[in-house]
Amino acid sequence: MFKKVVIFGVGLIGGSFALALRRAGQADHIVGVGRSLVSLERARELGLIDTVATDPAAAVEGADLILLAAPVAQTETILASIAPYLNPQAIVTDAGSTKGDVVAAARKALGARIGQFVPAHPIAGREQHGPEAALADLYEGKKVVITALPENAARDVETVAAAWRACGAIIHRLSPQEHDAVFASVSHLPHVLAFALVDDIAAKPHADTLFQYAASGFRDFTRIAASSPEMWRDITLANRDALLTEVDAYLVQLQAIREMIANSDGPALEQVYASARDARQQWAAAIEAAERKNG
Amino acid sequence: MFKKVVIFGVGLIGGSFALALRRAGQADHIVGVGRSLVSLERARELGLIDTVATDPAAAVEGADLILLAAPVAQTETILASIAPYLNPQAIVTDAGSTKGDVVAAARKALGARIGQFVPAHPIAGREQHGPEAALADLYEGKKVVITALPENAARDVETVAAAWRACGAIIHRLSPQEHDAVFASVSHLPHVLAFALVDDIAAKPHADTLFQYAASGFRDFTRIAASSPEMWRDITLANRDALLTEVDAYLVQLQAIREMIANSDGPALEQVYASARDARQQWAAAIEAAERKNG
Repeated sequence: MFKKVVIFGVGLIGGSFALALRRAGQADHIVGVGRSLVSLERARELGLIDTVATDPAAAVEGADLILLAAPVAQTETILASIAPYLNPQAIVTDAGSTKGDVVAAARKALGARIGQFVPAHPIAGREQHGPEAALADLYEGKKVVITALPENAARDVETVAAAWRACGAIIHRLSPQEHDAVFASVSHLPHVLAFALVDDIAAKPHADTLFQYAASGFRDFTRIAASSPEMWRDITLANRDALLTEVDAYLVQLQAIREMIANSDGPALEQVYASARDARQQWAAAIEAAERKNG
Repeated sequence: MFKKVVIFGVGLIGGSFALALRRAGQADHIVGVGRSLVSLERARELGLIDTVATDPAAAVEGADLILLAAPVAQTETILASIAPYLNPQAIVTDAGSTKGDVVAAARKALGARIGQFVPAHPIAGREQHGPEAALADLYEGKKVVITALPENAARDVETVAAAWRACGAIIHRLSPQEHDAVFASVSHLPHVLAFALVDDIAAKPHADTLFQYAASGFRDFTRIAASSPEMWRDITLANRDALLTEVDAYLVQLQAIREMIANSDGPALEQVYASARDARQQWAAAIEAAERKNG
């Protein structure tokens, strides 16, 4: 049970954490901090938080758990604003979708107190945003990746894991580097590819004709290209190195397939397509089996 | 009203055409022809066709409408087998998803009778295949692209259009070249990109770890990579030239984005992402408006 939980950014991610933790009986008092007072007041009306705070120093006084759920680019500023006032037993964690940059920002802002920061990434979301979108069961059966630092005490890592488990999540552990490489591959690269395709088509003189014939396959393939440009710009820059590695590998792969097409090499094309189809089907079957188990 | 309709390949596409045409009271007698007698008998049991035929010559005798709904690679063989027996008033059409190669095959097989062949492409489908998957309303509100030839008589093109309209479809017209360029862009390229991504990930030594963290964005993006490798090999080869143009344009686009990432050029990345997001949202809104109108 946490006596005082402080959440920076009470939108979908922070608000859902608040609801889930309270439902599990793990939070006595929850304080919301943020840049928009309107949004914080709304979060209080909705019962996500008990108190609204605008002064980070006062907010973290006596807090035992602090979650950063604001845009990742604010990490260093927020941590620098609370560093001098942190209780030595307080644990700080985050919900950012990149980890290398967050850890670097935390090291700068926290210095010798870096051990109090346990980085994490909940793999959950929905299309709606803001406090109204928060759900007590958003994390039910979802993965949370904890990317513990060498400086973290084992019991602090376990405390963060237990908080997320109380929200219904399943804990995974990776190093920050492993985390960023994995998500560059299965999330950030697909986003770049989908944005690239839609922009490529939109820039053509006969784009209207082209879009007119786009059907359900195009709809699914490009759904992620409807994501926030600002957020994905930040993720792209934050995970630049790992993403470049993935983009370069993909360019090599696509160039090879281009040559198969140019050479009308049917057997080679069929082999690539079949390997992809088989891997996709195995993946979908494993996901469905896991969902049945968790559901 | 057609007296005798002959359908080569009574699976999802041919079978749904048969059901829809009969429901509209436009077909007196429907004959199914194909390579699998089991499948044809099943189509007859299901009420898709009235008669099963194995001899193409006998099948087309007295026919006024002939639809090719077999794999596109069989076009030339089928047309050559029926050419000598075609009634001069008979109209032949097809349902292939590429048109340049189909027209070339038709010209070879039909020679001076090419005017009797009106090429078309219904933009409809579902994941299931075979006669059991056929639906009377598969084409309801869906597009059918007719790619008429200079040799076609206007009344024959109108007859094919009327048949598809009777099935509930909306008629569009493009030249075979326009058709192939459009679908290379909005359908064939996305399939190649999705196959390439999944194969790229599957070939990595730590593929299992990567797939473990793939979530809903990956699921949507790669749904089309679960498509038939044989069918997509054939489409890739059939539409090689138009597809190469699209792959090359995409490689240029992706290389440009790669440089933006390497240079940490946030404004340029945001511009690409925002242009894609806006185009995707406009497209989705237009599609939804059209569906409300047709629904």
